[in-house]
Amino acid sequence: MIRNLAVLGSTGSIGRQTLEVVRAFPDRFRIIGLAAGKNLELLSYQVKEFKPRSVYFQDREAPAKPDNECEFMTPEEIARHPEVDAVVIAISGTSGLLPTLAAVKSGKKVALANKESLVMAGEIIIKEAKLNKAEILPVDSEHSAIWQCLNGEEQKPAQLVLTASGGPFRRLPAAKLNRVTPQQALKHPSWQMGQKVTIDSATLMNKGLEVIEAHWLFDFPFESIRVLIHPESIIHSLVEFADGSVKAQLSYPDMRLPIQYALSYPERWLNPKLPRVNWDSLSSLTFEQPDRNRFPCLKIAVEAGRKGGTYPAVLCGADEVAVELFLSGRIKFTDIARLVTGALEQHQSVAHPTLEEILDADTWAREKVSQIATGDNLC
Amino acid sequence: MIRNLAVLGSTGSIGRQTLEVVRAFPDRFRIIGLAAGKNLELLSYQVKEFKPRSVYFQDREAPAKPDNECEFMTPEEIARHPEVDAVVIAISGTSGLLPTLAAVKSGKKVALANKESLVMAGEIIIKEAKLNKAEILPVDSEHSAIWQCLNGEEQKPAQLVLTASGGPFRRLPAAKLNRVTPQQALKHPSWQMGQKVTIDSATLMNKGLEVIEAHWLFDFPFESIRVLIHPESIIHSLVEFADGSVKAQLSYPDMRLPIQYALSYPERWLNPKLPRVNWDSLSSLTFEQPDRNRFPCLKIAVEAGRKGGTYPAVLCGADEVAVELFLSGRIKFTDIARLVTGALEQHQSVAHPTLEEILDADTWAREKVSQIATGDNLC
Repeated sequence: MIRNLAVLGSTGSIGRQTLEVVRAFPDRFRIIGLAAGKNLELLSYQVKEFKPRSVYFQDREAPAKPDNECEFMTPEEIARHPEVDAVVIAISGTSGLLPTLAAVKSGKKVALANKESLVMAGEIIIKEAKLNKAEILPVDSEHSAIWQCLNGEEQKPAQLVLTASGGPFRRLPAAKLNRVTPQQALKHPSWQMGQKVTIDSATLMNKGLEVIEAHWLFDFPFESIRVLIHPESIIHSLVEFADGSVKAQLSYPDMRLPIQYALSYPERWLNPKLPRVNWDSLSSLTFEQPDRNRFPCLKIAVEAGRKGGTYPAVLCGADEVAVELFLSGRIKFTDIARLVTGALEQHQSVAHPTLEEILDADTWAREKVSQIATGDNLC
Repeated sequence: MIRNLAVLGSTGSIGRQTLEVVRAFPDRFRIIGLAAGKNLELLSYQVKEFKPRSVYFQDREAPAKPDNECEFMTPEEIARHPEVDAVVIAISGTSGLLPTLAAVKSGKKVALANKESLVMAGEIIIKEAKLNKAEILPVDSEHSAIWQCLNGEEQKPAQLVLTASGGPFRRLPAAKLNRVTPQQALKHPSWQMGQKVTIDSATLMNKGLEVIEAHWLFDFPFESIRVLIHPESIIHSLVEFADGSVKAQLSYPDMRLPIQYALSYPERWLNPKLPRVNWDSLSSLTFEQPDRNRFPCLKIAVEAGRKGGTYPAVLCGADEVAVELFLSGRIKFTDIARLVTGALEQHQSVAHPTLEEILDADTWAREKVSQIATGDNLC
């Protein structure tokens, strides 16, 4: 059976790895649509190679248009395309929200690598998925691990344990955290990922977003979702069942495996390009508790998730701007948590928000963070 | 739904733990039959508490007969009892074979804690199980782990990885192994088990038997079953799938969990008596390769399994006598491997043996080992 795919965010880290998986199984996939932001050069190559019907790129007036041979469509239109079976949401950040919603509303299989859409609008997306019989297939390695461990289990588990590498500053004393540079923060010890998620991993904000994502994906209470630091990034998460038995999913850190699993599910495909655990060299898997004082973003995020309403949207919008400010050298690493907290504290949340209220909260948070940062005269 | 159980070997380690599980769920189980060897005192208490319909004990002329209120039956008759839904085979050693076969032939659910029956007569038992629609539910922690990891997976996995604690002599230099005492060998670092299996764990014979058991239980080729030393005994085994993804099952070493899972399957029951992983204290899981030179029994057993025929029956019979000789102080620890090898080397194997040929091979092996040991003048 051929799977007809749309890959939204095809030139980013997850998008490129999705196309690597597609390349490994030329008889099993057809690319119907590709959507990219600014990397027009790479998109042009992808269009030549995969010959999609429809394509999107942000700057339509760009000189090297890749859409000569295919129709120009918005990401939402591509997601809804009648020929598409599965949509890979590989767009990072809050821009993933509307395409995810479009895919869910059209009842597609949605391979979801974007955290923010569920974090911001989990209630709406899950409701629409049920209503339209859309299947949300997690691509994040942690959620893929939990999904795999839940396979075949009939009962709701007792606890979800999300693992986290701890990021590059796991051992750095608190006093030194405000002097770390973007270059240091971008050196993730175990994963190769996009810039935003790499910085979020360094602050542990990423793990907080994942806790909220797990809450929605698995309809699970926050108090039974736990975070465990596991620097080797080999166990991607664990599930504890009612009887105390625990299942874990392991593999070397390589996003192509969870991407492929989301696309091959319920099958599993042999892919010689994917690394296999070397049992001869496996020696030690270690665990420790996350330090919520040095990395306050974890607590901040989970707290915003628990409170719900438009707080998670503010969390995402504020974090996105704060990370940009840090990457451009305008604020310190430790300011990220401070600015996000500032925005959350000043926010008036709306309970069970509409999509519009969520997008408004996101916009408000972005402005608020810029405003606090400027007011601080941090530049 | 009440489960009507027969517990064969009720006064042994697995039998007693089975009854602990039954005690924790008085509304879910009824004990129809109990069978024990020599511990008549404990059996009498068990009969008083659980009021089975039928009972067996080895010495029928013993003074304190527990069968006043219930019918005396052989283990095979208890296994076949029409009221019994599930038979727990908690008999250790080769005596487990005939009761297992009786249970399988009557199409019962068979919670199998006895390794030897599948090792000696895997071909016959699996054939009869299919023929009579008997379900074999593994109770060994490693096989339970694999079974749990296979749950919900549609395809045959790529590799099974059985973990082993490595036993009490994992770090002991080869030269010192021939001086270890039964008392030292009976001190297992992580598991509380019966004497036979504890000694088999110290020699790694136990892991070899488990490889053969896994071969039959999961219809899996020997070359794709691997053994990994994991001294903490928290990961009970792992399964590697076609795509390279690996699942593992974890829990503290406590046989009541796999026993309960076999009896509650496909459900999982909350049992406050079972230990739960303490996530705050989990710090390190380590792995190393088994040393096949210091612990030759692993290789000897797997080799016998690969060759098939009546070799595995000789393996079991020979090992059982050799372990008894070691426990009674008549041979050295390192003699166990030597005596078993001696029996295997002198054996004329029969391909696809009948039950009779298997039992004959077992008897032959027992005599052969006694003979070699006596000839050695080891006493």
